[in-house]
Amino acid sequence: MSEITKRRLRLGMVGGGEGAFIGEVHRFAARLDDHYELVAGALSSQHDKAERSAKALGIARSYVDFEAMAQQESEREDGIEVVSIVTPNHLHAPVAMAFLQRDIHVICDKPLTATLAEAKALSQVAEASQAQFLLTHNYSAYPMVREARAMVKEGKLGNIRSIQVEYAQDWLTHSLEQTGNKQAVWRSDPAQAGLAGCVGDIGSHAYQLACFVANTQAKEVLADLSSWVDGRLLDDEANILLRFENGAKGHLWASQVAPGNENALTLRVYGDQAGIEWHQETPNELIYSVLGEPSQRLRRGNGYLSDAAASVSRIPSGHPEGYLEAFANLYCEFAEQLLTATTNPHLPTLATGLHGMRFITASVYSSQNNGLWVPIGH
Amino acid sequence: MSEITKRRLRLGMVGGGEGAFIGEVHRFAARLDDHYELVAGALSSQHDKAERSAKALGIARSYVDFEAMAQQESEREDGIEVVSIVTPNHLHAPVAMAFLQRDIHVICDKPLTATLAEAKALSQVAEASQAQFLLTHNYSAYPMVREARAMVKEGKLGNIRSIQVEYAQDWLTHSLEQTGNKQAVWRSDPAQAGLAGCVGDIGSHAYQLACFVANTQAKEVLADLSSWVDGRLLDDEANILLRFENGAKGHLWASQVAPGNENALTLRVYGDQAGIEWHQETPNELIYSVLGEPSQRLRRGNGYLSDAAASVSRIPSGHPEGYLEAFANLYCEFAEQLLTATTNPHLPTLATGLHGMRFITASVYSSQNNGLWVPIGH
Amino acid sequence: MSEITKRRLRLGMVGGGEGAFIGEVHRFAARLDDHYELVAGALSSQHDKAERSAKALGIARSYVDFEAMAQQESEREDGIEVVSIVTPNHLHAPVAMAFLQRDIHVICDKPLTATLAEAKALSQVAEASQAQFLLTHNYSAYPMVREARAMVKEGKLGNIRSIQVEYAQDWLTHSLEQTGNKQAVWRSDPAQAGLAGCVGDIGSHAYQLACFVANTQAKEVLADLSSWVDGRLLDDEANILLRFENGAKGHLWASQVAPGNENALTLRVYGDQAGIEWHQETPNELIYSVLGEPSQRLRRGNGYLSDAAASVSRIPSGHPEGYLEAFANLYCEFAEQLLTATTNPHLPTLATGLHGMRFITASVYSSQNNGLWVPIGH
Amino acid sequence: MSEITKRRLRLGMVGGGEGAFIGEVHRFAARLDDHYELVAGALSSQHDKAERSAKALGIARSYVDFEAMAQQESEREDGIEVVSIVTPNHLHAPVAMAFLQRDIHVICDKPLTATLAEAKALSQVAEASQAQFLLTHNYSAYPMVREARAMVKEGKLGNIRSIQVEYAQDWLTHSLEQTGNKQAVWRSDPAQAGLAGCVGDIGSHAYQLACFVANTQAKEVLADLSSWVDGRLLDDEANILLRFENGAKGHLWASQVAPGNENALTLRVYGDQAGIEWHQETPNELIYSVLGEPSQRLRRGNGYLSDAAASVSRIPSGHPEGYLEAFANLYCEFAEQLLTATTNPHLPTLATGLHGMRFITASVYSSQNNGLWVPIGH
Repeated sequence: MSEITKRRLRLGMVGGGEGAFIGEVHRFAARLDDHYELVAGALSSQHDKAERSAKALGIARSYVDFEAMAQQESEREDGIEVVSIVTPNHLHAPVAMAFLQRDIHVICDKPLTATLAEAKALSQVAEASQAQFLLTHNYSAYPMVREARAMVKEGKLGNIRSIQVEYAQDWLTHSLEQTGNKQAVWRSDPAQAGLAGCVGDIGSHAYQLACFVANTQAKEVLADLSSWVDGRLLDDEANILLRFENGAKGHLWASQVAPGNENALTLRVYGDQAGIEWHQETPNELIYSVLGEPSQRLRRGNGYLSDAAASVSRIPSGHPEGYLEAFANLYCEFAEQLLTATTNPHLPTLATGLHGMRFITASVYSSQNNGLWVPIGH
Repeated sequence: MSEITKRRLRLGMVGGGEGAFIGEVHRFAARLDDHYELVAGALSSQHDKAERSAKALGIARSYVDFEAMAQQESEREDGIEVVSIVTPNHLHAPVAMAFLQRDIHVICDKPLTATLAEAKALSQVAEASQAQFLLTHNYSAYPMVREARAMVKEGKLGNIRSIQVEYAQDWLTHSLEQTGNKQAVWRSDPAQAGLAGCVGDIGSHAYQLACFVANTQAKEVLADLSSWVDGRLLDDEANILLRFENGAKGHLWASQVAPGNENALTLRVYGDQAGIEWHQETPNELIYSVLGEPSQRLRRGNGYLSDAAASVSRIPSGHPEGYLEAFANLYCEFAEQLLTATTNPHLPTLATGLHGMRFITASVYSSQNNGLWVPIGH
Repeated sequence: MSEITKRRLRLGMVGGGEGAFIGEVHRFAARLDDHYELVAGALSSQHDKAERSAKALGIARSYVDFEAMAQQESEREDGIEVVSIVTPNHLHAPVAMAFLQRDIHVICDKPLTATLAEAKALSQVAEASQAQFLLTHNYSAYPMVREARAMVKEGKLGNIRSIQVEYAQDWLTHSLEQTGNKQAVWRSDPAQAGLAGCVGDIGSHAYQLACFVANTQAKEVLADLSSWVDGRLLDDEANILLRFENGAKGHLWASQVAPGNENALTLRVYGDQAGIEWHQETPNELIYSVLGEPSQRLRRGNGYLSDAAASVSRIPSGHPEGYLEAFANLYCEFAEQLLTATTNPHLPTLATGLHGMRFITASVYSSQNNGLWVPIGH
Repeated sequence: MSEITKRRLRLGMVGGGEGAFIGEVHRFAARLDDHYELVAGALSSQHDKAERSAKALGIARSYVDFEAMAQQESEREDGIEVVSIVTPNHLHAPVAMAFLQRDIHVICDKPLTATLAEAKALSQVAEASQAQFLLTHNYSAYPMVREARAMVKEGKLGNIRSIQVEYAQDWLTHSLEQTGNKQAVWRSDPAQAGLAGCVGDIGSHAYQLACFVANTQAKEVLADLSSWVDGRLLDDEANILLRFENGAKGHLWASQVAPGNENALTLRVYGDQAGIEWHQETPNELIYSVLGEPSQRLRRGNGYLSDAAASVSRIPSGHPEGYLEAFANLYCEFAEQLLTATTNPHLPTLATGLHGMRFITASVYSSQNNGLWVPIGH
């Protein structure tokens, strides 16, 4: 991490109360590099739970209503400068708007919103705001993912032809939502998750990762979505064919019903000179294969890597960095951007999220029409 | 290998002269378990080359013309009982017909023929023959593939939902055919290879493997084929969506232009209870993951495996068996079938090959029509 | 991490100024779970550097002299409660004594001291102190290491027979100390590192890990130490035979001159019923092999693991946790121990460190005598 | 395999009747490349079993007594030219002598003999014979092992400093010999196996592999042998420290009681410039790590390998070759040596075996004396 002025940004959080998964991840991420101080939160819309959660975390100012929080924090001299939104998808847009309209910077979990219409509306609000927006596509902040992106940009793969990306899990193989599991309930509820299930939850990550590394985006998609579990309203698996703007083709497989897969996000990119391969579950390695030469195992923390990887790496090679470190990289770089008034081209923005919603929407539409090639649009 | 009467079958070979790859593989396979004696061959259509090849191999009777060979061998008392066909695809049908019409058993490399029409014609000839037919889909004869198939049949995966199969190579990344490389020349020539390139050459293997293990076949396919190299007339990469008769869905990726991949055939099958994963390049292992339990690494040669695996395994666990051993399993089982008048349900037949040609044909048609779901047909 | 009262412990640090590696690691570890607040430091014995380092970190009270720091902090009402010692080895003893004598808790990096004599003296001081002592053998705090230990204790391996442990690096293959590299300079200087080089620096970790998991300790060792690099005064590689109190035998290999190894700490333990295998560079997995059954791949974050692993795990399976998280586990558990007045049996103590010094001393002695079996002693 | 005159050598076999493991391996190996014809055998010392075994294998001439076989075969014009000895260790010497004295070439399994005295006596007989001798240290014939040896010779690792070699199995974890298992019975019987158990059976392989690749041999050893199973007379595990003639040091671990290990022979060699790593269970790969560069994964069958690997490789990269192919390489090269009157420097000879017996003997002696450094001698 590059050196930045030692001042902690005042941070708030919406969502992320007791029992939440991603809220805790954001808090670890905010804390690791010491650039934020969590001072306010609307951790739950239930009063007691919000209070209890705030107290357990030692957060000074607890709110129940995010609108009230945005209003009051914007009026305090020591009010929050940044808010992290870690609610279910359907609240991303209204919460983000509330803070952006008051020029409070937003860190928002993905997907951007529940629907494309919301995403467009949010986009307009953001344009009118002085505040900045970070979408936490955390996988794109792993050092070896950054290295991969740099390699593609430098032409080390030649012209990109083929992209295979996949994100497989197994936790929704059975009807976990019917057991009351909080994570499963909202993700399988169209009112909270939006128009897509698996495609929105993890397909969007896989798609962003592929675009981020290959330095392109899809121009059209053809999807076959499935919903394997009885009574499940949203998709839990997707096979999506991709055609990219740079001429490459590819396939995206996302599944939450594939037994034996925990969080198996894998990206492979092939050009006419070389190929690369990266696995999120062993993130400190990147396999690089030049045609006709032995495959090379590039590993985080080594002197032969580019600045792109080195700048988001904390400890020496062989000491594994993981998911929290990658997540923290986004927080760290966003703090740096805010404090130094620079722009970091690697950070996922609201535009990234808007494009992601177009991808999700086109995929759902394609599948509903038995597999048409559907343009993603602009 | 189970004990069989010690008599060597008299074997002939068509194709496989100097410089051939797959002909040599067939000879290794025929020799390993000592059930065949190679006594005649039409190893090349060029007289000198045929003679030279036969002499180098110590083959007694050398022919130039496969018709003459079929005729004369069928008339000898000590004539061949079985012929191996290891020519380019377009010769499979005429050669096979010549021998089947004379009731000589046929071992034929894949794909069955160059076109579906040829496959149908060959099928009719075979029906009228007393002879038997083996198609060398060798990957289905690896012990751990047999184990996988047995596990699916026993219901150890539950209901099959998802199949991901891929076969990636890199040897055609550049225009090898223009350098005169014999293997590349005929595979990229429609007159010799038939209607498909990569899909026919390796996609057909991947598809057969998936069907063999999951104990089903596709009812419709949707394909996006590519031909990446300038001047190449046939496809060198394919992304194919699959819908299977048992309700499962899947994806098949075949590529001969993916740098870093040698012969990377990988199969993953997921049911509602468990998943399995197998890689051809580490064939002695099968990963088996029951939902909620630690993944298990099943390995060839262990007492906990089924007869399905044990019966095609030669040496103790930890002593790796490879490609030649799997190939030899087909030869061994075919010999056993011929000598004992039993039927081995695991052996790929002419019907397997005919279905494979339907798959290839439907994939090409789908891609030519920008990705339609095309029924495979019967 | 189990729930603890939300109060941050006031933390100080000795060593860890600009350019230090392990000091930064300790700070990450202290911050991650929010149980400490770093408020004072003697980060360097050079005044300017100490000041600059403290400022960059936002540390309120900066000292140059650790004695002065111990004295003054012990007199403040808001003085530090805990100090982290991250100096070269030869300062561990005097610094720790200074704080222990004032009943300030100590977190100290390994090895305990530079010599066994110092370790004994420190031990006496500690006995007379009210304060507690944590030795940061961080590898023993990985969730899957805890699982391994629990499995051994439950008898899942049967009687332990054989232990193979190794810790290989390559960063000292050439004479890095002659280039002025700070980490290399003090580690290869007997005045700062103590009586051993590689054995003290990483051999001590490997040995502690083996004892921790196998729930035993060596009763005698036989060592062959090497110093491969011209002019290097301390060992940079060690092969050590081990005989344990529980009757097991084993081997420890530590090397800092093995090209291709970054931080390759690997432990294998075999009993008469099962074996386990763990690699620090892929720490989220533990291979468990019951004789005659398929190997199992136990992975962090799954429901089938014991509390021992679950209690030191933060995020769901498939989201890799790494080195910093494991290090932070020690800080977190030590905070919990201090705040709740409980004793965590998994935490490495001063006694652990004293035994470690006996191991180092016996190994050096054995090697100096061309490989005698040397008792470790008590 | 290079081209050789097409004439099959007449082969005999002593040992290897029904139920034998290694005899069958030798037959596969002899058959694969078609350079041998098995025409005579003394497959068992029991008449019925010998007859039955010979018949099942289609062997023309069956003997019960190896002396009679040697005598009669040497007198026939069409008598065997080569004999394979696949008996328990104690018969290696007398059988080999019987054939060598009649100038019949010998292929003999390892270890050379049951005792060093026998080895010396055999050595003298061999010197007086016109016949040649091959010791089947098959692991040294894997293509990637040959590559490793070539790399060391070319100086690609720099000066060799450290060698770690291990060979772990688990099949003797319990007292298999008491169940009547044929393989276990003779290997744990000093009268048949000789002075060592595990060290002789697999330690000898590991040691030969290390010496073969590193192009050196040990000058002294220090061993700690164990016999873990009640009633077992010979060692079943060994930790052996090594000092080599070229100045390198190392460690050899051999175990037959390590649950989870099938045939885990692993070699790692480190020089002052680079390191290599090879695993017998994934034999088509060799990891090569130059200090400061990404590790490379060298794989069999690629154009970037040396002739040393290419000349013992049959099929393209990605098509795994295994144990039988490596074993067959020895048979193939020996045939070539016999037929062309050349000398292949890679083939293990009687001198290799004699040195191996010195290693075994020194290891046993060292352990019996509680770990002395014992010179291996010449």
